[in-house]
Amino acid sequence: MTAPRALEWVGVNDAYGTPIVAVIGDGQLARMMHTEAIELGLAPRVLAGSREASAAQVFGDVRLGDYHNLADLEATAADATAVTFDHEHVPNEHLHSLIDAGVAVEPRPEALIYAQDKLEQRTRLRELGLPVPPFAAITSVDDASRFFDEVDGQVCLKTTRGGYDGHGVWFPETREELAEQVATILAQDVGLYAEAKVAFVRELSAMVARNRSGQVEAWPVVESRQDGGICRVAISPAPELSDERARYCRDLAIRIAEELDVTGVLAVELFETADGVLVNELAMRPHNTGHWTQDGCVTSQFEQHLRAVLDWPLGSTAPTAPVTVMVNTLGGDADPETPMAERVADVMRKYPEAKIHLYGKSYRPGRKMGHVNVAADSLERALEVAEDAAHYIINAEWK
Amino acid sequence: MTAPRALEWVGVNDAYGTPIVAVIGDGQLARMMHTEAIELGLAPRVLAGSREASAAQVFGDVRLGDYHNLADLEATAADATAVTFDHEHVPNEHLHSLIDAGVAVEPRPEALIYAQDKLEQRTRLRELGLPVPPFAAITSVDDASRFFDEVDGQVCLKTTRGGYDGHGVWFPETREELAEQVATILAQDVGLYAEAKVAFVRELSAMVARNRSGQVEAWPVVESRQDGGICRVAISPAPELSDERARYCRDLAIRIAEELDVTGVLAVELFETADGVLVNELAMRPHNTGHWTQDGCVTSQFEQHLRAVLDWPLGSTAPTAPVTVMVNTLGGDADPETPMAERVADVMRKYPEAKIHLYGKSYRPGRKMGHVNVAADSLERALEVAEDAAHYIINAEWK
Repeated sequence: MTAPRALEWVGVNDAYGTPIVAVIGDGQLARMMHTEAIELGLAPRVLAGSREASAAQVFGDVRLGDYHNLADLEATAADATAVTFDHEHVPNEHLHSLIDAGVAVEPRPEALIYAQDKLEQRTRLRELGLPVPPFAAITSVDDASRFFDEVDGQVCLKTTRGGYDGHGVWFPETREELAEQVATILAQDVGLYAEAKVAFVRELSAMVARNRSGQVEAWPVVESRQDGGICRVAISPAPELSDERARYCRDLAIRIAEELDVTGVLAVELFETADGVLVNELAMRPHNTGHWTQDGCVTSQFEQHLRAVLDWPLGSTAPTAPVTVMVNTLGGDADPETPMAERVADVMRKYPEAKIHLYGKSYRPGRKMGHVNVAADSLERALEVAEDAAHYIINAEWK
Repeated sequence: MTAPRALEWVGVNDAYGTPIVAVIGDGQLARMMHTEAIELGLAPRVLAGSREASAAQVFGDVRLGDYHNLADLEATAADATAVTFDHEHVPNEHLHSLIDAGVAVEPRPEALIYAQDKLEQRTRLRELGLPVPPFAAITSVDDASRFFDEVDGQVCLKTTRGGYDGHGVWFPETREELAEQVATILAQDVGLYAEAKVAFVRELSAMVARNRSGQVEAWPVVESRQDGGICRVAISPAPELSDERARYCRDLAIRIAEELDVTGVLAVELFETADGVLVNELAMRPHNTGHWTQDGCVTSQFEQHLRAVLDWPLGSTAPTAPVTVMVNTLGGDADPETPMAERVADVMRKYPEAKIHLYGKSYRPGRKMGHVNVAADSLERALEVAEDAAHYIINAEWK
């Protein structure tokens, strides 16, 4: 592990008292925070694993290093007004060390743990009386077998940590399959729990932001359409969601933010069932289901996150269009021969209203390479344009 | 003059065929182009005079050098898909050299000359039959005296090049004063011309963008309020402008873009008089009167400029709110003791809808340090909020 090699950076903003926001993590979330940070006059800094990473390509202040390494985190945090994240994988003990050294880590590790560890999250939310599926810690095949009976065999097996975008999730069909999977996973010394497979109608996402002073602002609740566990489409506002249920989801997200002392953006992913909603996952950072805010809302989730982690007052979450749809451009089965720049130009020609966001990433099947936002007067139009535009960017052909 | 010192940049985007846009000039316009370039997945590069400059603080690829120096321009242009500008001060002959070497310079020097040299602009627009005030080249005190008679003493004296924000403009009251000023300026070997002082009702700005393929898109015509020759407020759309006159202004800007073969954003600053409009200045780059597009329009001028210089199709210029007002935050008589970060937070607290843009610049009286955009349903509200917010950022007190 090498220490971060700072570029020739002279801390030019210090003289003007400009807050430095240090972002740990070099993916597209950090990259998109950077665009908002620039406009707010902030001095953004990123800790990146390589100069080729999505965020490292575009930041003016790049520290190369490893987020598992405390020395690299300390060097990145030096003089920063706030330290925040584009993922939840920084070791919690390092965050405590930073805080002990006087660094403003937002969100705090005491909150972040509920985004890092799903079993901790489930346990805490159940304690708070909030709606989660039945679940149980799994430390043996016996535990698993007992839970199998409790939920009539409708089992979803998850690693407590590190799973995302469909990774670390299994749906065993039989008791034998479950036993085999549990034995295999536990042998790898990986934390495991099980929960009841939810028969959901659709997935929703309730997003809020909260600052250290306790101000909370909520965005409209969105519908999230997933494909193989990966978010593919987000629709704001969620179509045909009753006012009552929308309010319930919003209040639930606000309550979670407050109870867990979350700072920054909180995404509460929800299962909508025939009877109501259940919490699926929590993320304490800008989230894929909030990308629509860049082009459909007064304050984007990226700006709001920065404001929240600096303990600045939060911005208006009023939408600027009746409907905004986001569709991810996920790397397809093959990389088309038509170069990306040509595909982008073709989409721009057909849809002058499409807002294309690309992350500077090379092609890989299923990889989140960018997204398209479309704001429109009708759901039909927004969905049609965003779907067709994203499809073309991936495949170089129209739907 | 030293050669540009490239940071440790490894051209990571080359592998993905990502277009590189090289921006000459390190001010806020380059800075704000960068935010849009990131979202478009471009690999933006800037030629900056110092690492402390507004744009150099935030770009990932910074070349330090001097835009007067051809070698520095060549190094910055190497491998770039397009080269563009945040000001019009690059020597025209250097641009010709770059083009001879195969660089896509947008706008071309043949167009840019009309933004660089006001006498060339006046002459060309008059040839085209477009509305300009009476004017004359001034190469002697006699020339000036003759023109003084022609316009009944209503003379405005301007340097042909380099004037902006009220610099390089004089309003002599008497023939003697005129003679004295002309003699002084000509002795400095500075190009000079005179035009009739226009009795205007207000100033307007008609902005369009045009790409190399000839596509042109126009934004709504805005009213621009100046203070000492510096733009202070822009209101979109211009209040109480008749549809007919708005159409005339828009068509005039489109005609100028086409006749002069402009690529990128073109701002046509106009005097509105009792009888109609007269062209004041041309700018071939994003312009202060177009900053409102960042928060009030589907496609901002910065994104549109990048699309245009890459010869990509242009985006929708539909407004996203009934009215958007931009107010500049110009350094006041003194720098308040309240730090900028606190002032920003105070404004955010009072006006959650205010969009603050800061350029990372230190305080200097009259300096363009940032701007505030406010979109609203009514002109009164947008103007009130934007004016009060900008006033507070400058003075640390409410209006």
